[in-house]
Amino acid sequence: MWNVLNGVRILDLSRVFAGPAATQVLGDLGADVVKVEEPGKGDEARGFGVTKEMVESGITVSPSFVALNRNKRSVAINLASEAGQRAIRSMVRECDVVVNNFRPGTMEKYGLGYEDLRAERADIVYCQFSAYGNVGPLANFGANDVALQAHSGLMSITGEADRSPVRCGTSVIDLHASLALVIAIMAALMHRERTGEGQMVESSLLRSSAHLMNYFYGEYWVTGAIRKPMGTANHLSVPNQVFPTADGSVVIIAPGDDMWRRCATALDAQALDRPEWRGMLDRQRHRADLIQAMTAVTLRLGSAELIDRLAPAKVNVARVNNLGQAADHPQLAAIGAITSFEMDGREVKAVASPFDLCGIPPAPNRPPPLLAAHTDEVLRELGIGDSDIEMLRAQGAFSQPRTTTSGDSR
Amino acid sequence: MWNVLNGVRILDLSRVFAGPAATQVLGDLGADVVKVEEPGKGDEARGFGVTKEMVESGITVSPSFVALNRNKRSVAINLASEAGQRAIRSMVRECDVVVNNFRPGTMEKYGLGYEDLRAERADIVYCQFSAYGNVGPLANFGANDVALQAHSGLMSITGEADRSPVRCGTSVIDLHASLALVIAIMAALMHRERTGEGQMVESSLLRSSAHLMNYFYGEYWVTGAIRKPMGTANHLSVPNQVFPTADGSVVIIAPGDDMWRRCATALDAQALDRPEWRGMLDRQRHRADLIQAMTAVTLRLGSAELIDRLAPAKVNVARVNNLGQAADHPQLAAIGAITSFEMDGREVKAVASPFDLCGIPPAPNRPPPLLAAHTDEVLRELGIGDSDIEMLRAQGAFSQPRTTTSGDSR
Repeated sequence: MWNVLNGVRILDLSRVFAGPAATQVLGDLGADVVKVEEPGKGDEARGFGVTKEMVESGITVSPSFVALNRNKRSVAINLASEAGQRAIRSMVRECDVVVNNFRPGTMEKYGLGYEDLRAERADIVYCQFSAYGNVGPLANFGANDVALQAHSGLMSITGEADRSPVRCGTSVIDLHASLALVIAIMAALMHRERTGEGQMVESSLLRSSAHLMNYFYGEYWVTGAIRKPMGTANHLSVPNQVFPTADGSVVIIAPGDDMWRRCATALDAQALDRPEWRGMLDRQRHRADLIQAMTAVTLRLGSAELIDRLAPAKVNVARVNNLGQAADHPQLAAIGAITSFEMDGREVKAVASPFDLCGIPPAPNRPPPLLAAHTDEVLRELGIGDSDIEMLRAQGAFSQPRTTTSGDSR
Repeated sequence: MWNVLNGVRILDLSRVFAGPAATQVLGDLGADVVKVEEPGKGDEARGFGVTKEMVESGITVSPSFVALNRNKRSVAINLASEAGQRAIRSMVRECDVVVNNFRPGTMEKYGLGYEDLRAERADIVYCQFSAYGNVGPLANFGANDVALQAHSGLMSITGEADRSPVRCGTSVIDLHASLALVIAIMAALMHRERTGEGQMVESSLLRSSAHLMNYFYGEYWVTGAIRKPMGTANHLSVPNQVFPTADGSVVIIAPGDDMWRRCATALDAQALDRPEWRGMLDRQRHRADLIQAMTAVTLRLGSAELIDRLAPAKVNVARVNNLGQAADHPQLAAIGAITSFEMDGREVKAVASPFDLCGIPPAPNRPPPLLAAHTDEVLRELGIGDSDIEMLRAQGAFSQPRTTTSGDSR
C-alpha cells in the first residue's frame, strides 16, 4: 500500500464485489478502511464459490473475498439494532467517508442516511452505491453483475453469431464500478480539501454498465444500429479477432491501414496485400473474404511462427491463454501486478491495484481481516470509551440479529 | 463537467480508447485537456467503425471517438519533427499532467521521456500507459483490448460450455484501464498537493485485465482451478444465470440462502424449496438438478409474470435487453447517466462519466473537438508567442509527417 490517502478514514458498510473492490483500492492508496460486517455472518462474499472440497482442504474464506478485502479491518455491527446504529453514528464523527451499497432507503430506515450522518459530521463524504440508482422505475430492483450484463445489452453483443448470448466471464460491471467509486470518492475528497464541504456521491451497476457500453449506445443514438454478437470479432475494424493456427489459435489485430499492410506482408503478401483491402472501409466491406483469406494463411503456420513473424512487424498478436497460463505468465510478475500478504502463516498472492505510482514506495499489505477481528480496537481508536463499548455490547450492537437482514442488501 | 479539477491542465498524447477515455473523465471533472493529435490524420479512433453508409449520411467521425473525446481541445503536432518536439517541451512547462500510450521507448526517442519533461517542469505527473507494461518479456509487444482479452484468460472463461471462447462484446479492458489511469493521476495530484513532488504513474492493458480477473487468478493460485466458460452461468453461486421463459428469457440471481428461499417460494415452493438445496454449498453440488427444476418452472411463465413475482420478493431478476432497449430504457435517463453536447448544430447524446457528485452542479460540456481546431489558441494560452508559433509552423511542427508514424503507436 502507498501513503497517498494516509489520514483518510473510510467506514465501509458495503458488501460483495463493487463496494469492497473500491475500498480495497482506497486501502491500497493508504486510507484506513474499516469494514463493517454483519455479526456472525459477515460479508456474503466470504462464502462465494467455497466448495466442500475447499473447506475440507482448510480454505474457509472464498478466493473472491481474499481478492477484494486486503488492507481493511473488520468490525461486526448489527445495523438492525438501535445500539448498532448508535455505534455507527458515533464512529462517523471520526470518519471522512462512508460507503454503502444497501438498497435505496435502507440506510435511511436505519437512521444512517446522508442527512443523519452529516448531522454527526458536517463534511462527510457519503457514497451511495446501488444497482440501478436511487430514482427512476427500477430504483427498487435488486441486481448483481450478471443482471446488469443482461439489462445493459452487454450480453446481447457477447457470444457466437446467431447463437444465444453469453455473459462476459468475469464480474466486469462490478469491478468497473469499483474504480468509478474510487474516482468519485477521490474527487469529493479533493473538493472537500478546497472548499471544506462534504457531499453525497453516487454510482451504480447501471452507470458502470452504461460506461462500458458508451460507444455502442452512442452509435445507436445516432444511427439506430443494434449490434449483435460476433464471436471473437469486432465491428470496429478488420482483422481484429482469433484465427486458428496449425497448432492452436492466436488473436491478430491490424486496425490501421499501415498495420494491416505490415500484417499482410509478414504473413503472405501475395494472398493478402490486395489493393481492394487497403483502406479501413474497404476491409470492413470485404470482411468475410478477408477473414477467409487470412484463415487459409494462419492455418498453415504454428502459433509461435505466427507470433515470430507478426510481432517484429509491429502487428498486434497474442496467444489465447487459459487462466493458469495467464496468472503464471512471467510478464504479470515482471511489471509488479502481483502483490502478496501473509495469511494463516503462508504467503498469499493477489492482483495489485491496476496502476503504479512510481514515485511512492509501497508499504506492506494487511491481509483480509477475520470477521469482527478489530471491533474493539477500532471503536477505541474512534474515541468510544471502554464503558460505552460495553454498554453497546450489552444492548446488542455487536451481536447477530435475531432475523437475518442480509436479504435487504442488494 | 464539474469544477473539481479546474486549474489542472493535461497534455494528452494518447490515442484510441484507454487514454482518451481516461482524459475524458478528467475533463468531465473540470481539467483542461489538450489533446495532441497527428496533423492531417488525428486519433485513429476518429475513423473506427465509420462505414460508407455513415459517411454518405454525413457522419464522418466515429461514434467511439464521439463517446470518448468531449471536454477536450485538439492541437495537431507532428511529434516526429524536431520543431514539434520543441513545441511539446514548451507546452509542458504550463501543464500538470502528460498522458501517453506510445510503445515503451517512443517518447524517449522523441526527447519527450519522463526525464526530458521533468527537466522542463519538475513536478510534472507523467502518465505512461502501455499494452503489457514497460518491462518484462512482452514489453515490446503491441496489443489492444481483444489481445488482452485473449492473453488474460478472460476469453477462456467467456462463451458456451464446450465450445470455442468468445470475446466480451465491448472493449472492457480498455475502458476499465481508463478508470485506473484516472485514479493513478488523481492520486499523483494529491501526492503533489501534499509534497510538491511530481512522479511517473503507469498502467497497462495487462494490469487492467489482471484486475478484472483478480478472483480467478487468486483461486488458481490457491487451488489450481482453471475455470472454463459456463454460458450465462457463474461458478460463484446457483442460480445466477439466464432462464428461458414462455415468451423470452430473464436473468434470475439468488446467491444467498435467504434470497434463494424467497425465490423458490415465489416461483413454485413445492418444486423448488427442497431441503437438500437450502445451503449455498448444497446448491453448488446440485447445480444441474436445480437448474433443470428452475427451467421447468420458468418455461411455464411469461417474462413479465416472472419479474412481477420475483422483484417484490427481493429476488434479483432482469430482462435480457438488446442495445436499443438498453440505451433507451427510461432508467438510464432518470438517473442522469446520459449527458449531451451540441455538435454540427444538433444535440448529441453521450454516456456520462460513471458516477455523480451530488454536491457540485455540473457545467455544460464541450463537444469533441475537430482535429487541430485549437492549435493556435492553446499554444498562445501556454505562453508561446505568435512569432514562436509561426517559427514552429515554418519548421514543420504542425504539418503532416512525411512518412506516417502511426504504426509506432500501440
